[in-house]
Amino acid sequence: MKTMIWEDGILKILDQTKLPEKIEYIEAKDVETVAGAIRRLSVRGAPAIGAAAAYGMVLGANSINENDREKFLAELNSIGNKLASTRPTAVNLRWAVDRVLNKVKNRDDLNVEEIKALLLEEAHKIFCEDLEANRKMGEYGQSLIPENARIITHCNAGALATAGFGTALGVIRAAHRANKNIEVFADETRPLLQGARLTAWEMMQEKIPVTLITDNMAGYLMAVGKADLVIVGADRIAANGDVANKIGTYGLAVLAKAHGLPFYVAAPTSTLDLSLSSGSQIPIEERDETEVTTIGGTSVAPTGVKVWNPAFDVTPHELVTAIITERGVVKPPYTENLRKIMEKDTETSEVCRGQNPSR
Amino acid sequence: MKTMIWEDGILKILDQTKLPEKIEYIEAKDVETVAGAIRRLSVRGAPAIGAAAAYGMVLGANSINENDREKFLAELNSIGNKLASTRPTAVNLRWAVDRVLNKVKNRDDLNVEEIKALLLEEAHKIFCEDLEANRKMGEYGQSLIPENARIITHCNAGALATAGFGTALGVIRAAHRANKNIEVFADETRPLLQGARLTAWEMMQEKIPVTLITDNMAGYLMAVGKADLVIVGADRIAANGDVANKIGTYGLAVLAKAHGLPFYVAAPTSTLDLSLSSGSQIPIEERDETEVTTIGGTSVAPTGVKVWNPAFDVTPHELVTAIITERGVVKPPYTENLRKIMEKDTETSEVCRGQNPSR
Repeated sequence: MKTMIWEDGILKILDQTKLPEKIEYIEAKDVETVAGAIRRLSVRGAPAIGAAAAYGMVLGANSINENDREKFLAELNSIGNKLASTRPTAVNLRWAVDRVLNKVKNRDDLNVEEIKALLLEEAHKIFCEDLEANRKMGEYGQSLIPENARIITHCNAGALATAGFGTALGVIRAAHRANKNIEVFADETRPLLQGARLTAWEMMQEKIPVTLITDNMAGYLMAVGKADLVIVGADRIAANGDVANKIGTYGLAVLAKAHGLPFYVAAPTSTLDLSLSSGSQIPIEERDETEVTTIGGTSVAPTGVKVWNPAFDVTPHELVTAIITERGVVKPPYTENLRKIMEKDTETSEVCRGQNPSR
Repeated sequence: MKTMIWEDGILKILDQTKLPEKIEYIEAKDVETVAGAIRRLSVRGAPAIGAAAAYGMVLGANSINENDREKFLAELNSIGNKLASTRPTAVNLRWAVDRVLNKVKNRDDLNVEEIKALLLEEAHKIFCEDLEANRKMGEYGQSLIPENARIITHCNAGALATAGFGTALGVIRAAHRANKNIEVFADETRPLLQGARLTAWEMMQEKIPVTLITDNMAGYLMAVGKADLVIVGADRIAANGDVANKIGTYGLAVLAKAHGLPFYVAAPTSTLDLSLSSGSQIPIEERDETEVTTIGGTSVAPTGVKVWNPAFDVTPHELVTAIITERGVVKPPYTENLRKIMEKDTETSEVCRGQNPSR
């Protein structure tokens, strides 16, 4: 199941709000449709939002009716700002917008049509590199997973949250493919049930043993000795290793610590925000009350009840055993080791030069 | 809103599975209907189950067509065993069945009709004493609640879980009535959403400020300094103070400890099971998978997914700051202090002699 497909100048976005009941693609022909899909969580997961935003910038560029390069770039910049503001927490969104903008900003040698072509090339590269990063994270990460591990994961950090393969679920996939006889416990992840709807479904598609639990069962699962480790994705990681991720991640990390279980975070380096010294600076999105008060259109709470609905929380780095990136596994002290890994030269992938990788 | 009403030889049971959408009473004319209501969670909450079971025994007794006292009592005993087996974790169920059985077992001076009358009298006493116990717990417990406290509670330990007033919510009610300017955060309590459907509703009815959160938000709420203490009810408390309560309670207790917040349990002494030395001996009910995979009839997970659905968990006594009972507040060491409080003579209430208290 592909999260998104670029085809004939259109971005087809898998509508994840309808999974697993229905498999439907939204055909985005303009950047506004992409922005709406991000806002509504039709496409979600930090790396997938990044890739969708990159293609969204291409759609935005294609709609600009302007041959003057400077005016064109000014308009594109404004489109980028609007797109980047659709969701505040996942840094990959801003990162992807900036990356395509930077790619074209000083190219005085190119005309507008050539710039548009370069934007598409860069979007393809972002998509392709994310896919490759996930496979690398899978390899690095699976070395941390023991045989017969029973693994708790939260939300969906899977193929559906990325260009493909997944971050946390990529590690799980790689461990499964290495015949480690693993078993997954998927937190359902209220309010929007990404664990129940997406993670359980992804695991079942590949016949990876999975058991669904409600979020409040994870602690008891650990207490009765049925879990060996926790692995999750991330929406933004600060320079000190503090991790913003789906609401509930923090509680899970506290529980893992209380039970002496490793707590791993898998995320591409595009999720790092070294401009923030700690997690307290990460903006946490609060979403609509109806996400909590209704489920699938059914009301589950009294009319008019007050709701608090933060979409993310911050897990302090002290609770994180290791951060798995496509450049390797990073362990504490994070401030030092995250900086080091970012300074490391990485070979440019031959895989990501060329054709449309989303098809 | 009354949890149950005894009227004209019928037990009217508020069907809590339909709240807050619909207020409907089940008219139980036989013990099987009461057992079904307990099994389906139409009546739930340890003390309310106890009271319903006591009235269920009256209905069971009334259906026995037998004038020989010994044969009558043998049949009643067998009805008691069946009723007590409907749910395994809450000890109040077995406690109430045993209490009505013990009340009549050596009364050779009474004929069957007189025994039936005595059973009803005892059921009324159980109901009345629970109501009174809740008010006393409210008074003892509210002394522990500081002014302006922001209180997290889990599941529903309210009027709906008892004969009235509530255990944990009884303490909250008493603190509110003492003008302590408190604020409640209600965990929604998946899978059956007793926090969203029942606790939020009870609080709103009395205009006690309440905010609904999903279970996985409690940790972050504590981390950002928006909570001061946790108070929950209990389904069974072992001699050492280990507490079985709704699934998720344990995780909340671990989080409270990690944030240095008090974690209180409010429960009548009928919830104590001093025959068990620790919580590991408490049987934990596992319920049907569909409770997790569907919400209000809507499927929220892939068809055929494997589910783990324990209805309760056990919180070790080390995480419990104090246990609030109708005989006073019990602090560690629990093995010693729970025994002491049970040995204490308590005056018999004048309130609970006489009329039907449920009307």
